[in-house]
Amino acid sequence: MSVAVNGFTVVADGSVTTPKGFRAGGVHCGIKKTKQRDLGAIVCEVPAEAAGVFTKNLVCAAPLAVTKESLAAGGKLRAMLVNSGNANACTGEQGLRDAREMRARFAAALGTAEHLVGVTSTGGIGVTLPMDNVRSGIDALAGTLTEAGGDAFCEAIMTTDLVKKTACVRLTVDGVPVHVAGAAKGSGMIHPNMATMLGFITTDAAVAPGVLQALLSAVTDETFNMITVDGDTSTNDMVVAMASGLAGNKPLDPAHPEWEKFAAAFRFVAKTLAKAIARDGEGATKLIEVNVTGAAGVEDARAIARTIAGSNLVKAAVYGSDANWGRVIAAAGRAGRAMNPDTVDIRIGDIFVLRKSAPVAFDEAAAKAYLDGDTVAIHVDLGIGDGRATAWGCDLTYDYVKINASYRT
Amino acid sequence: MSVAVNGFTVVADGSVTTPKGFRAGGVHCGIKKTKQRDLGAIVCEVPAEAAGVFTKNLVCAAPLAVTKESLAAGGKLRAMLVNSGNANACTGEQGLRDAREMRARFAAALGTAEHLVGVTSTGGIGVTLPMDNVRSGIDALAGTLTEAGGDAFCEAIMTTDLVKKTACVRLTVDGVPVHVAGAAKGSGMIHPNMATMLGFITTDAAVAPGVLQALLSAVTDETFNMITVDGDTSTNDMVVAMASGLAGNKPLDPAHPEWEKFAAAFRFVAKTLAKAIARDGEGATKLIEVNVTGAAGVEDARAIARTIAGSNLVKAAVYGSDANWGRVIAAAGRAGRAMNPDTVDIRIGDIFVLRKSAPVAFDEAAAKAYLDGDTVAIHVDLGIGDGRATAWGCDLTYDYVKINASYRT
Repeated sequence: MSVAVNGFTVVADGSVTTPKGFRAGGVHCGIKKTKQRDLGAIVCEVPAEAAGVFTKNLVCAAPLAVTKESLAAGGKLRAMLVNSGNANACTGEQGLRDAREMRARFAAALGTAEHLVGVTSTGGIGVTLPMDNVRSGIDALAGTLTEAGGDAFCEAIMTTDLVKKTACVRLTVDGVPVHVAGAAKGSGMIHPNMATMLGFITTDAAVAPGVLQALLSAVTDETFNMITVDGDTSTNDMVVAMASGLAGNKPLDPAHPEWEKFAAAFRFVAKTLAKAIARDGEGATKLIEVNVTGAAGVEDARAIARTIAGSNLVKAAVYGSDANWGRVIAAAGRAGRAMNPDTVDIRIGDIFVLRKSAPVAFDEAAAKAYLDGDTVAIHVDLGIGDGRATAWGCDLTYDYVKINASYRT
Repeated sequence: MSVAVNGFTVVADGSVTTPKGFRAGGVHCGIKKTKQRDLGAIVCEVPAEAAGVFTKNLVCAAPLAVTKESLAAGGKLRAMLVNSGNANACTGEQGLRDAREMRARFAAALGTAEHLVGVTSTGGIGVTLPMDNVRSGIDALAGTLTEAGGDAFCEAIMTTDLVKKTACVRLTVDGVPVHVAGAAKGSGMIHPNMATMLGFITTDAAVAPGVLQALLSAVTDETFNMITVDGDTSTNDMVVAMASGLAGNKPLDPAHPEWEKFAAAFRFVAKTLAKAIARDGEGATKLIEVNVTGAAGVEDARAIARTIAGSNLVKAAVYGSDANWGRVIAAAGRAGRAMNPDTVDIRIGDIFVLRKSAPVAFDEAAAKAYLDGDTVAIHVDLGIGDGRATAWGCDLTYDYVKINASYRT
């Protein structure tokens, strides 16, 4: 099934293996206590132009250091290896040795150089990996990678996620078909400057060296860095993009006549994954979208949008379908950004609740009906400039508490 | 009942009226739908040396502007008037007129100048005050203020609070008895740089002009600004201190030989109130105390302690009695302050769980038994300097969500 969107087409049944040159897969090797897949990989048949963004948490897991090394060696990757069920974070020297061994073993199984392989982990902190399981898992995984393996990969990277998160689009560049696809995981510990999330974006477009990193960094600021589930950030967050170049287009850079179309497609994939992560926030029943306009600048708009989307009080009010705009404006006011307390408009969906900072009489029943839906948009116009941004979050529910009161045990 | 503490004695049955010269009271005038008291005041028989600290939220309620004016007029107050059930915030020009009218009417009832009266409000945002009720309430209140009214005042300032919060100590300065007492409210929307909290500190000590403000500001940074319930800050937060000077001591300033004893007593009152607010956090079952040592400096220690105490994931783990130190170190790492990921020690109570950032095998049953208690101390030694600080918070529970999903309705 395909749906046309400005300049590109959504491929509803696509996955990270839809772009030419990519295979993927996932196996269960016993890192998780359950029978779910817990080790997966995406592999490209050629060294792909690659880019990465990483957690800003000062406590950074071992595999991230190893993946950064690989990217630094030449900016190309043939494979990303991922395990769930264990974050390999706060595991000291042993953790670093384990991450290096995972990279070396998978590189050997693929017959490629170590610096063309990245590794990452997600799950609990502070426990070393069961390396016997990981070793046999890597050996088994290497033989199962196919073009049909995108779904198994998505499953292998899940922790508390309830749904797989994937996106795929097709567009035309230089007259040839080009694909951009992505997979992600993330549910709790989600916050600006990334979160307990992993993202993988594949494309068969040819992209000029260095350009993919600039694009990924810019798009991440608008998408993955604009979601929040609980204000906590993780030791393991990363997004990696890989471009195989097998589509046959001329290498893309901002001077290419179809650059904007490609960038829009790339942004769409990242945004789709980001929203899917926010909607699948631990215990969430609703996606919250906060649109801030009229800010002094885009950075102010982003900070205010994230503060509102991350407010426990706003999140709990949305859970209770309560049009509590007082909490929205109070959250905006504590973001520490430029604001005029007398010029604020707030809409819940299409319902104005505040104009020029004065309460508007509104239909409470209509507001409640809107808030009972599965997507709640909150629009805040600060009325002082033209900065705008969107942040995504989810409601705060009993189940969030339940999930996180007993995660480790 | 009295308990001796370094240099001062706790007066367990004391209240804001224990210091000489203060009367207080509270009435129900119909701002709240329930029959609880919703209008209260503390009055001093002489103009008291006064000091205030106020919310840093850019959206600041009308009564705060009025109280700041009063303080600016001469640094003295005879009375603080407080209503609960309505914050008089985001109420525009009408809100400001109402706050001024409250001040004027109460000043007239007391026969004192307007600039010797402060007003404050707490409750829901965005609804104008029912001024007919407030007017008759003020008239009734003025006739009920007594030395026995501290308890009625405490009740009149409560919103979602479950318990009254009060503290009182006695010490000797210049050979005469001196008292410091306080009352506070606060339960949700509690966060560094204050919160939906109000605090009132009274003393009969004579304090040199200007000194009370400096003391209150410094003590607030160590106490009221170190508590967090949910990361949200309010439009209405304030702490006001009033010193009647009727104890008969020589005016206190840092050069006075007994200054440190007085400052310690004042700090104890503020800390007792701050901890009581954290413990009574909305839905809370446990007080969390986070002690950070070994930070690069005191500001770093404070920021890291507050980030840990404010982490939803840490709070949910404490609710579940889960010794999940990974969340503690991850929260520390995202505080944006100096930290060496390899030199961190963490203790839960007396149980070491991390030494030099390496996991320590510990008795899970003993940890769970400790975490089942009503006070949980988390000690984090960063191992890089001598900065230290303590923050207080509470666990995140189903009831927090329940309370805040339906606050307005």
